[in-house]
Amino acid sequence: MTGLDLKKIVRDIREFEGLTRKKPIEDIVRIFENVRSDYQGTIIDFGDDAAVIGIGGDDVILFAADGIWGKITEASPWWAGYSSVLVNVNDISAMGGRPLAMVNILSTDNMDACEQLIKGISDGVKKFSVPMVGGHMHPDTPYTSISVAIIGIAKKDCIIRSDTAQAGDAVIAAYDLDGRLGPNSPYSWDTTSFKDPSQVREMYMVMQKIGEAKIATAGKDISNPGTIGTLGMLCESSKVGAMVDLDRIPVPDSVDLEQWLKVYPATGYVLTAKEENASECIRIFRDAGITAAVIGSINDSRRLEIFNEDSKATVFDFNSDTITGINMDF
Amino acid sequence: MTGLDLKKIVRDIREFEGLTRKKPIEDIVRIFENVRSDYQGTIIDFGDDAAVIGIGGDDVILFAADGIWGKITEASPWWAGYSSVLVNVNDISAMGGRPLAMVNILSTDNMDACEQLIKGISDGVKKFSVPMVGGHMHPDTPYTSISVAIIGIAKKDCIIRSDTAQAGDAVIAAYDLDGRLGPNSPYSWDTTSFKDPSQVREMYMVMQKIGEAKIATAGKDISNPGTIGTLGMLCESSKVGAMVDLDRIPVPDSVDLEQWLKVYPATGYVLTAKEENASECIRIFRDAGITAAVIGSINDSRRLEIFNEDSKATVFDFNSDTITGINMDF
Repeated sequence: MTGLDLKKIVRDIREFEGLTRKKPIEDIVRIFENVRSDYQGTIIDFGDDAAVIGIGGDDVILFAADGIWGKITEASPWWAGYSSVLVNVNDISAMGGRPLAMVNILSTDNMDACEQLIKGISDGVKKFSVPMVGGHMHPDTPYTSISVAIIGIAKKDCIIRSDTAQAGDAVIAAYDLDGRLGPNSPYSWDTTSFKDPSQVREMYMVMQKIGEAKIATAGKDISNPGTIGTLGMLCESSKVGAMVDLDRIPVPDSVDLEQWLKVYPATGYVLTAKEENASECIRIFRDAGITAAVIGSINDSRRLEIFNEDSKATVFDFNSDTITGINMDF
Repeated sequence: MTGLDLKKIVRDIREFEGLTRKKPIEDIVRIFENVRSDYQGTIIDFGDDAAVIGIGGDDVILFAADGIWGKITEASPWWAGYSSVLVNVNDISAMGGRPLAMVNILSTDNMDACEQLIKGISDGVKKFSVPMVGGHMHPDTPYTSISVAIIGIAKKDCIIRSDTAQAGDAVIAAYDLDGRLGPNSPYSWDTTSFKDPSQVREMYMVMQKIGEAKIATAGKDISNPGTIGTLGMLCESSKVGAMVDLDRIPVPDSVDLEQWLKVYPATGYVLTAKEENASECIRIFRDAGITAAVIGSINDSRRLEIFNEDSKATVFDFNSDTITGINMDF
C-alpha cells in the first residue's frame, strides 16, 4: 500500500489516548513492588493480562481486573456492561486460560443507566458463558462506573505470557474480521454481539488450543492501545524490539489501516512464535474463523519499527520510551 | 443492663445506612439469576461473603469483591486504601479460607488522594500479607474510588457458609476488643493498624481453624450493617430466626452498646454452632486473642428478636422483611 504517511501513523499511535492512559500503571507498580517478593504462590503478577497464582499441582489460577473507560459508560451503559465481560474474558483467554467466574463492582446513582448496564453485563454473561458470581454495589455515587474481576484456570506449562518473546520469533497478528465498527466508538470493532454464543465460545478457545500445542513464545490480546500499541507493550515487557510490515496486517474491507491500528478489535491477538511454528499458529486461528498473518519479526534492538514499501519509522524506542514501565527497572 | 430503649435500637438498626445500602443487591441478583444454573463449577454464588468455585479435587477457590464507601474515601484516602484490603481479607477469612491474592480497580483524577490511597493499600498488603497482583487504573475520572477483588483457597468440606444455620444452634458473637474508634468514622473500630503483622495474621486464621475443626454450622464477618444487621443477613439466607440477649454481647469498655451495634469491628464474626460445640468455638477464638460469647440461639420463626432484662423487640421479620432479598424467592 503506497501513500501512507508513516510519521503521522507513529504520532497517532504514540498520542492515542488508549495508549497514553497506560502510563500511570508505572507509578502503581513501583509502589507495590516492595511486597511482591514476599509471596511465593505468585508466578507472574503485574505486567501480563492476568496474574498467575500457583495453587500446588499442575493447574494455576489466572486472576485479572478491568474497568470500562468512563467515556464508553456515558455513551452507552449497555455496551459498557457488555464490554466489561468481553475485556475480562479476553484477559484470561489471551493467556491460554479457561474463564471460571467473574465478580463486579458497580457504582451509580442513576437507576436508568444502571439497569441498562446490568442488562449489558447479563447479555455478556450469556454470550461468553462465564458466570457472574458476586459483586458489590455502591448505590449512592455521583457517577456510573463498572469494573469486573475474573478468574480462570490453566495448565501451568501451557500459559501464553507476554514477557517471553525472543529475537528471531515471527510476529503474528490475528483478528476476527467479521465485525462492524461502533456504534458507540469509532475505535471499537464489535465481533460478538450479533453472533451465536456457541460460535463465540469456540472462537475464544483459540488461544487455549495454541497454548496447549506449545507453539507460541508469547502473546497478548489487542486492547485499547491498538495493534501496534499492544505489540509495543509485549516488546517492552519482553525487553525486545520488533520490525512490522504494515502491508501484511489483515484489515477489514470497510476500515482503513490508519484507523484499524487504533481499534479495539474485540477478538484480536498479537502472538510471537518460532518461524517454524508460525504456519501452525495461523492454521489454528483460521480453523476458529480468525484471520491471522505473519506481520513481522522480533529482534533485540528494543525498538518497535514499522515499514511499508515507501518508508520506515520508529514507533517506540524502549531504550528511552516507556509505555507501562513494567519490567524496565526490575 | 437496664434502661436500654429497645424500640430505638431496632429503629437505629433498621434505618442505619450501613444496612439499607444492602437493599439494591436484591435487584442485581434477580437480573443475574437466569444465568446461574448454566454453570456447573460454582458451588455458592451471590449471598455469601465470597463465591465458591469448584476446580476439581478437594480444594475450592473463594472469590469476592468489595469497594469502599465514598464517604470513607473522602474522609481519608489512606484509610480507604487500607480498608479495601481489610474488608476483602475478611470476606475470605470469614468463610474459613486462606487469602491468595488481590487485584484492584482505582479511579481518580486527584493524584494527591491517589497517592495516599495507594499508600493505604500498600500498608494493608504488608499488614495482612496478601499480595496485590494486578489491577486497572482509570486516571481520568472526576472522583476517587477504590475497589478490590480477592481470591482464596479452602478445603471444600471446611468452608463456613452463611446459609446453613439451623434451629437450635447457639449464636456466637466474636470480636477483637483491643481496638479504637475512628479516627475517620464513629462506626469504624480499628483493631489492626497499630498491631504487628504476625499478630494480625494469626488472628485472621481463626475462622480457618474453626472451619477445619468442623464445629460451626454457619458464620459471617460483621460488616457495615453491624452485629445485629449481619446476623440478620445470616438468618435471611439461612431462612431461620434468632433470639439475641443484648446483655451477653461483648462490648469494649470505651463504647456504649447502642453505638457498638452499628460499628464495623474490623475483626468480628457472628457464628452459629451446635450447643455442644459452642465452648470449643469460644476457646479457639480466645486462643487467637478474640473475645467471644454465646449471645442467643437460632430458631425457626424467621424473626430476629432482641431482648434484655426489661423488654423484647423484633428487629426483622423475614416473613415480610428483606435485607438483601437473597434466598427469599429462589
